[in-house]
Amino acid sequence: MRIATARVDGVVTTVVDSGQGWRTSRVPALDVVTGADAGPGDQVAEEQLEYLLPYRPPTIHGIGLNYADTVAEMGWKTPTAPYLFPKLSSSACGPRDDIVVDLALTARADWEAELGVVIGRPAKSVPVNEAMSYVAGYVAANDLSARDLQEQDGQWVRGKGLDTFCPLGPWILTKDEVPDPQQVAIRTWVNGQLMQNGSTASMIFSIAELVSYCSSFFTLAPGDVILSGTPAGCGDFRSPAVALRPGDVIEVEVAGLGRQHSNISAPAPHEL
Amino acid sequence: MRIATARVDGVVTTVVDSGQGWRTSRVPALDVVTGADAGPGDQVAEEQLEYLLPYRPPTIHGIGLNYADTVAEMGWKTPTAPYLFPKLSSSACGPRDDIVVDLALTARADWEAELGVVIGRPAKSVPVNEAMSYVAGYVAANDLSARDLQEQDGQWVRGKGLDTFCPLGPWILTKDEVPDPQQVAIRTWVNGQLMQNGSTASMIFSIAELVSYCSSFFTLAPGDVILSGTPAGCGDFRSPAVALRPGDVIEVEVAGLGRQHSNISAPAPHEL
Repeated sequence: MRIATARVDGVVTTVVDSGQGWRTSRVPALDVVTGADAGPGDQVAEEQLEYLLPYRPPTIHGIGLNYADTVAEMGWKTPTAPYLFPKLSSSACGPRDDIVVDLALTARADWEAELGVVIGRPAKSVPVNEAMSYVAGYVAANDLSARDLQEQDGQWVRGKGLDTFCPLGPWILTKDEVPDPQQVAIRTWVNGQLMQNGSTASMIFSIAELVSYCSSFFTLAPGDVILSGTPAGCGDFRSPAVALRPGDVIEVEVAGLGRQHSNISAPAPHEL
Repeated sequence: MRIATARVDGVVTTVVDSGQGWRTSRVPALDVVTGADAGPGDQVAEEQLEYLLPYRPPTIHGIGLNYADTVAEMGWKTPTAPYLFPKLSSSACGPRDDIVVDLALTARADWEAELGVVIGRPAKSVPVNEAMSYVAGYVAANDLSARDLQEQDGQWVRGKGLDTFCPLGPWILTKDEVPDPQQVAIRTWVNGQLMQNGSTASMIFSIAELVSYCSSFFTLAPGDVILSGTPAGCGDFRSPAVALRPGDVIEVEVAGLGRQHSNISAPAPHEL
């Protein structure tokens, strides 16, 4: 099943596709994700959907350095445990929303296309061999990163948490429709140029290991998202380095989970 | 006005005290905090209240090293900007709940009594001289910290984010009842011994500066809490160091904001 939140003829609604095309639902997307019946609804053509953030996750856990190709590219050591970092829920936005890059805050905004793991029920101290039963599905994610702020602070709250630095969607795909989550293609294009072209097959810690690891410290809540790491091809590790700037267009595609199209914009003058 | 969530005769309810004693309210505590009318309700005696977590904050921002006496005690340099760290919302618990210290996860669990700043309306890029108008009130907080995990990871997600490591309450006090938030006494007792005895007067960055700083990077949401730092007297910097262990009792009091009483407990065997 695909689950999304979209604007349809100006109205924000949950839409669900169980295989016969999209239908509207009065049940909030997060409730459908966690098992509520979407009920009968009106059919909607895909072209009518303006995809929005599916729902705001209670908590987003970031995992760094989880792809063998990325670790090699960065010249870092292979981690011996998942490397947890914070990703503010307030940074989540929709898959068609502008990504705001304020050059007064960061000169090194970078992309990280990722498979987002969506938690379906409360999980605490779950063993690896049971961890997948706590996963409801998957969502495409762009874990945008301000490399200069990451370096300045040590803590990555600012470097990972700026507003709009976590586009999610366009939809959540329930796990029954993903035959092997460790064989999923991930791609990024910037201004039409292919920048990342990887696969979840290169993960160092599997999705089950990540869920189990996080749950050994924190109770994972329904709707929480684990960002499972990014394959090689980020901008900051290229030679010369590439940073996102207003005017750029970035597309992130995770096979089966749809494609994000985001314009990079400058911040709007704010009202005082 | 004081706003709390409490169990009264077995029923969980919002309670509000506008100066004539506690009354029940059908409006969720967060809505009252952000300005909703609590409506008329039934009177309740303070003795009937079993205080719970007032509400789960969407985001909790932690500020490190913000007290001159603490920085001196730790031998650190005075920061030139607020030091932001992540505090998972999932770590929040009530002011009477057990704090779970799992010795298999941390051998150096420490306390940090703090003034929590409660955001009342969306705040983005607000200047210092307007920042206080975005503050709804204050809440007592214990920013528990696993010092070993902080040191191991660099990132403080685990070290600050374990379940129950952020007792909040017993109540939120609206800011109109706090004449000067930079003159508030903060105290901690462990097993009856006074361990922290400070004042928000020792803050390096004022509450207004913290709100403005956070809002320059992130949109603060109604109900978000900023943990404004802790005065001297934590356990890990003592000689010899003191760590919290199951069986200990910790009390945190912030003047006007009530006193927390927490038993430190070992984790319950979890159900598989």
